[in-house]
Parts: sequence; C-alpha cells; structure tokens
Amino acid sequence: MSYEGITFRGSRSGHIHESRFLQQSLKPDEVVIRITHSGICGTDLHFMHADMVLGHEGVGVVQEVGENCKTLRVNDRVGWGYTYWSCGRCGACLTGHESYCPTAGKYGAHHLDQGSFGNLAIKPEQWVFRIPDGIESKYAAPLLCGGATVFSPMIEFLKPTDRVGIVGVGGLGHLAIQFAAKMGCDVVALSSTENKREDAINLGAREFYATEGVADYTMLNVTKPLDSLIIATGAENFDFANYYKLLKPVATVIPLTISFEPMVVPTIPTIANGIKIAGTTPSGILIMIQTLEFAERNHIRPIIQEFPMNEAGIMDAMAKLKNGDIRYRAVLSWQLSEDSV
Amino acid sequence: MSYEGITFRGSRSGHIHESRFLQQSLKPDEVVIRITHSGICGTDLHFMHADMVLGHEGVGVVQEVGENCKTLRVNDRVGWGYTYWSCGRCGACLTGHESYCPTAGKYGAHHLDQGSFGNLAIKPEQWVFRIPDGIESKYAAPLLCGGATVFSPMIEFLKPTDRVGIVGVGGLGHLAIQFAAKMGCDVVALSSTENKREDAINLGAREFYATEGVADYTMLNVTKPLDSLIIATGAENFDFANYYKLLKPVATVIPLTISFEPMVVPTIPTIANGIKIAGTTPSGILIMIQTLEFAERNHIRPIIQEFPMNEAGIMDAMAKLKNGDIRYRAVLSWQLSEDSV
Repeated sequence: MSYEGITFRGSRSGHIHESRFLQQSLKPDEVVIRITHSGICGTDLHFMHADMVLGHEGVGVVQEVGENCKTLRVNDRVGWGYTYWSCGRCGACLTGHESYCPTAGKYGAHHLDQGSFGNLAIKPEQWVFRIPDGIESKYAAPLLCGGATVFSPMIEFLKPTDRVGIVGVGGLGHLAIQFAAKMGCDVVALSSTENKREDAINLGAREFYATEGVADYTMLNVTKPLDSLIIATGAENFDFANYYKLLKPVATVIPLTISFEPMVVPTIPTIANGIKIAGTTPSGILIMIQTLEFAERNHIRPIIQEFPMNEAGIMDAMAKLKNGDIRYRAVLSWQLSEDSV
Repeated sequence: MSYEGITFRGSRSGHIHESRFLQQSLKPDEVVIRITHSGICGTDLHFMHADMVLGHEGVGVVQEVGENCKTLRVNDRVGWGYTYWSCGRCGACLTGHESYCPTAGKYGAHHLDQGSFGNLAIKPEQWVFRIPDGIESKYAAPLLCGGATVFSPMIEFLKPTDRVGIVGVGGLGHLAIQFAAKMGCDVVALSSTENKREDAINLGAREFYATEGVADYTMLNVTKPLDSLIIATGAENFDFANYYKLLKPVATVIPLTISFEPMVVPTIPTIANGIKIAGTTPSGILIMIQTLEFAERNHIRPIIQEFPMNEAGIMDAMAKLKNGDIRYRAVLSWQLSEDSV
C-alpha cells in the first residue's frame, strides 16, 4: 500500500505551490494522519522562499497505525510541532528537552518534504501526541509552536507571585498574557500604540502602557517594577537599556524574537542588578502537551483568523501575517477549503 | 570617647593620599574594627580618581562593641564587603540578597569616607561577619569581593556534574578554577596566551586552551562542549558568538566583566539553543560567609601579592594591577607597613 497526499511548498519566488506527497509504505512505528488544521507561524513566513513543504503546527486525525505503535489509535485527534526526531541518548533527550538535542531534526532544516500545510502526514508515533478533548483542533494548532514558545519559559522561569511585563500584543503576546494571568501573575502589557489596550486588558493584563514616542521609559510611570519581562515582539534592535528601567533587581528577561540582529545588552546594569536573560525554545513533546493541558484546564484559547488550506488561502494568510494584520494567529483549515470548493 | 584613624583616599589626579578618620561617638549597634588587611579589586582602580576612601575587601579585629551588639565580641576576627546597608524590608533583603536592594548603600556611591584602605572601621554589627579560623586574614580579604563574585553564580547556576569553561586566569579566574574543581566540576580554562597554562592546571583545570590568534573557536578543538561559561576576564567586546561554539545547548553564560561597553549577544543562537546569560553580583552577607566557609573546608586560597598599607604600597599595587602584573590578587597589609618603617 502507498500513501499519497497534497502538500503546499514554498518556492524561491515566495509563491506557494500545491504539490504531491507520496510514500510507498508505512514503517512499524509510524502513524498516518489526515491533517485537518495547521497554524501559521512567523517561521513559515521566513521559509516561504525555500523549496520545502511548510507548516509545523499540525493537527489531524490518525487514519492508520503501524504494527509496533503502542499509544495511538485510529481516530485519535493528534498534533505535532517543529521537531521531527532526536538522538534519544544525550542529556537534552534524556531530560525531556529533545529539541535541544544537537542532532535533532527540525522544521526548516530536515525532512523538507514534510510539513503540516497539506492533507497527509506520516510520522513516527513518538513525535505525535493526543490533543485534549476540551480544545477544538483549530485552537490547538497555534498552541503547538506559538503557545508552547511562550508557555515554556513561563513555566521554567516565572512564579505565580511575579509581576510580569509582556512586550508586544501579537501572536505570542496575546497568549503570554493569558498564560501569565491564569498562572496568577500580575500582568502588565506593553505595546507600541494604544490600539491593543482593550484586547490586552480583556485577555488578563491588569495594566497597559503604549511605548511609541516615549524616549525614556521612566516616563511611562509604570506603577511598580517588574519581576520578569517577556519580549514577544518581532521588533529588531530591542531597547534593553530602556526596558531595564522597568525591572526589579534579579529580574528575568525572556527574548522570544527570532532576529538576525544581535541583542545589545548593557553590561554593568545586567551584572549589578543580577538580571538574567534566558533564551528558550519549546524544548520537546512534554512542554507541548503541558501547554495544551494548561490551556484546556484554564480556558485559554488563541484568538484566530481562519483561512482555507489551499494556495490562495495560504498566500492570503501569509500576506496578512507579513503586514501585521493577523488578530492574533492564523490557522489553515481543510474544512474551510472544502467549503470554498 | 572619639575614634581617630588613618584612611587612604583617591583623588582626581589618581594619587593616593593618607588622610584622617574621625568619629565622635559609637552607636549602640556599631563595632570598632582595627583593620589588618584589605584586598585590592578592579573597582578600587576605577575609583582611584574619586575623592573617597578606597577599599571594600576589609579584614580586621574587633576592638570595641556597642552596647546593643549581639553576636560579635572584642578580638573577633571579622570582614566586610562592598554593601554598607540596605532597607531590610524588600524582596531582595528578605531573601538574603540585600546587595540587590534598590536602596542599598554601596562602595563607591555611599559612605565615601569609609573604606578598608585604612586602620580603623566603625560599622554596624549587622554588616560585619566572622572570618573562619582556618583562613588567614591575608587570604580572607580577596575572597570578600573577588571570591564571592565568582562563587555566587557558581552556587546559583552550576551543578557538580557540569563541564565548566572559565575564560581568563586572573584575579577572579584563578579562584573560579579552584571553586569549580572543588565542587567536583570538569574545569576547562581558556586564556589568551599559554602563559598561565601551568597555573591553571595546578589550580584544578583539567584542560587549557589559548585563544589568541584563533579566529574560529571551533579550531581550538575543545574535546567536549561546555555546560557553562564564566567570563572572568576584563576584555571588552567579548566575542559571544565565537564562545557559543564551545557550548552545549541550555548552557549558562556568566559575565563577570565590569564594562561600559554593552554585550553583543547573537539572538537566534541564544534562543534556539536555550542559552541563559546570568548577570550576578555577590548579593549579600550570606554568600560572603558561604564563600569563606567553602574555601576553608576545601583548602581554597587566593594566590596573593602583599603590599604595605601606605601611600607607596597602594600606588605600587595599583600600578601593577593596571598593567595586569598581579599574580593573582593584591592584598594590603598593616603588618608589612609596620615592618617597612
């Protein structure tokens, strides 16, 4: 038996092309998934110009399981993220942080013919996990990279007693506000303009400050200093020195911006005030499962815009994402695609 | 009764001047200390051009205690560091990290007529602590700032299972090597030239690499990647991107350089590999006491050069410190000063 499906690839021109997926056989440890949804992430935008199948926030339904599969069953609703495999033997793998495995296979670098922009995925059972019943698939998808990206450092570095600043109310920030609020934190949202004040407050922020045009952040008159700061904005040349004015000593700064520009960090204020800068990326299957479970239990949902899973839908979503017009996370749906036929 | 002593002040010209210390009375919570030794730290060099009494690695003997003093007795051998007071009520103070108290009084900014370059100190009992019997005063002094500066982040961020890189074999680095080795770590020393290889190995490093002239640190052929990196060098424009090549994922980088230049930190490698950059400074009395106790128990001693506690001795030591000629930490001694009369 062979497996054939549709996939959507990037190209040098940045146009998305429908292509075919063909695999001749199923390995004993693999499962076949009918993809129903995929989130769209900033990284997908970055790889639009690469000849590869896009998508790494996949959700679907198990269609078939290999003979050695142990936990998944046909009709299970499942998801997966950006890591495709890892060695299983290094310190990172053995502590549940397999994305940090030096030989991990990852989206954008390996298995370029795989991706969640498509209708079929064949993956090792080990790298796929169940979606909790209480979360609809369209809401689960953005939690698999975007959600886990903010939740992972929050679980590692924040305490529920923290006063947390979240810079940027976008795809990541609107989830970070919800997670922090539901962890019991005192949440302060910072955004360039006043546009997202109401959304930020509705999502759980207790205070909101607009930073555009404010040269010295002391002038923001933030009521109390912050224990931690999550940089959930794509802005380059992030102004560490200015944001430091808002922090308590021993604060933790969590940069989540994927930027080719280096971070320019003031040395003496970092050392004298015991500031920690913590680079993180969702480190494995476990944190994705925890993200989903926490969201289910605490009624956290991404605010999404749905697009049909086809060339036109993907191009439309990508253009809006590039222009900063997505409120707040784009999701591709086969249901919408079929409806639009 | 009044208290009169000798102090040594910096000046705009950078010349050290002997001056007088006069205090009219003793408060009930204060102790009078006859200073016997003071370490010299890079910060003292920085403040040579300020009109203030220098020194913040003080060791001496209690001469008199105020009526409300509770723990110290006459003839106790004691020390103190660079923090002079704090509020006692904030999160930093209440968790034993009083140097991070936003209103802490510190060397170089407050009580400019105090300092350990002198023969008399009058200080609140709360900010003075006993030196363990097993450590000679001349060896205790450099542990109070230099020693605690490296020991503090090591206790907070390192595990005895870590492979630790220490960049710079100087005043801080030669102590960091000893601490890490006695914590059971796998210690790798990195220095610009081969000059300090033998010292580094004798102090406990298992490997040594000279970096000067090596453009790409992959070419150092370090045998295994590092769990953590302690930057114990004063070099500005520290090459984070190059040192990152030596690190495991999820490594911790601890910058201890006091520099007015910012740190230029590569963004994507930090995030993708989960690297943490931890600014730290010795956070209070507790870590100084722990530094001394750990050093006593594990036979750790700074390698010192002694100088007489007088104008000429201080000028001589400062000049050598500035030129990088101290192996490895300078200590001023009244005994030497008296011997030289």
